[in-house]
Amino acid sequence: MHDTLLAYINQHTTSPLTREEEALIIATFHPKKLRKKQYFLQEGDVCKYVGFIVKGAMRQYSVDDKGVEHMVQLYIENWWVSDRESAVMLTPSRYYIDAWEDTELLIATVADMMDLMEKISSFGKMTRLMDNRNAIASQRRLNSTISNTAEKRYEEFTDNHPQFIQRFPQHLIASFLGITKETLSRIRKQAMK
Amino acid sequence: MHDTLLAYINQHTTSPLTREEEALIIATFHPKKLRKKQYFLQEGDVCKYVGFIVKGAMRQYSVDDKGVEHMVQLYIENWWVSDRESAVMLTPSRYYIDAWEDTELLIATVADMMDLMEKISSFGKMTRLMDNRNAIASQRRLNSTISNTAEKRYEEFTDNHPQFIQRFPQHLIASFLGITKETLSRIRKQAMK
Repeated sequence: MHDTLLAYINQHTTSPLTREEEALIIATFHPKKLRKKQYFLQEGDVCKYVGFIVKGAMRQYSVDDKGVEHMVQLYIENWWVSDRESAVMLTPSRYYIDAWEDTELLIATVADMMDLMEKISSFGKMTRLMDNRNAIASQRRLNSTISNTAEKRYEEFTDNHPQFIQRFPQHLIASFLGITKETLSRIRKQAMK
Repeated sequence: MHDTLLAYINQHTTSPLTREEEALIIATFHPKKLRKKQYFLQEGDVCKYVGFIVKGAMRQYSVDDKGVEHMVQLYIENWWVSDRESAVMLTPSRYYIDAWEDTELLIATVADMMDLMEKISSFGKMTRLMDNRNAIASQRRLNSTISNTAEKRYEEFTDNHPQFIQRFPQHLIASFLGITKETLSRIRKQAMK
């Protein structure tokens, strides 16, 4: 199970991990299984862990006053899952994170992650790359959300995340895009013509 | 002019900068003045610099096929300005960044910033903190954009960025929130009642 994580780190850095570094990473990350619908984090709790998804699919969402869920993030294999705001600021989370499919994770505490960043230069580089990608993806999504029509947003989404279309149902994707199910359904019918 | 930057770094780290570190930072960051409307970056160019705003206000926006500007970010004093995607990936930018007021910046190349992160531990910590804040702000803005009504989004915006209301006109704020000028005008009238 740790092999996936080690391969991921080696893919995202220039200097491969040494045996000692691999051992330290294996000792730091613990396997965790979640059944479909089981929570990784619940609103109001402080997010203590960062997870690396080895197998499965997850979602992060807020729930408004009317009980409607709003998808802030969808996750599949090789994605890192956490509520960064809560984990870094040690504040109660605004979000729920749960498993959409039966999921296998490797988890570490935020403090352990920081420790690895200091001790293992490749790990530090990988997290910086991850931060950059994250920042870039957020910027693109924000720009798309404020600038584009629903049609264009869906088109960009399918281009950027073709796997997500297979893994998540329409109503979650509509929520992720900030549009109604009905609008998404209309767009998909038009696109198929 | 560099004093503002040094004070900012010292505010955002636990170990204060040494004299040598201060000298290295001063040697790395160059002053740059922009007149109102002057570009820091134009669409299609690669973003070479990261800027720290000492005085002034700036905006980052995309322009769609119809020539409409969409504000992805607004900036004032003590904010870092850059198109991270272009700067990190060395790809042509999708955005314009220009001065909304006469602006004084301290600029450094991305390579020089990376160099400082390696050489000065406090600088590395400050940039990591900056990354965290950035990620948190993006997450909040995304969540607000997909989940909230226009009224609630404007309310959150005024709570989070009271200074922005003084510095930027209505139409830029409406664009930042992804709503029309007319909607913003209606919300403001209701809020004043």
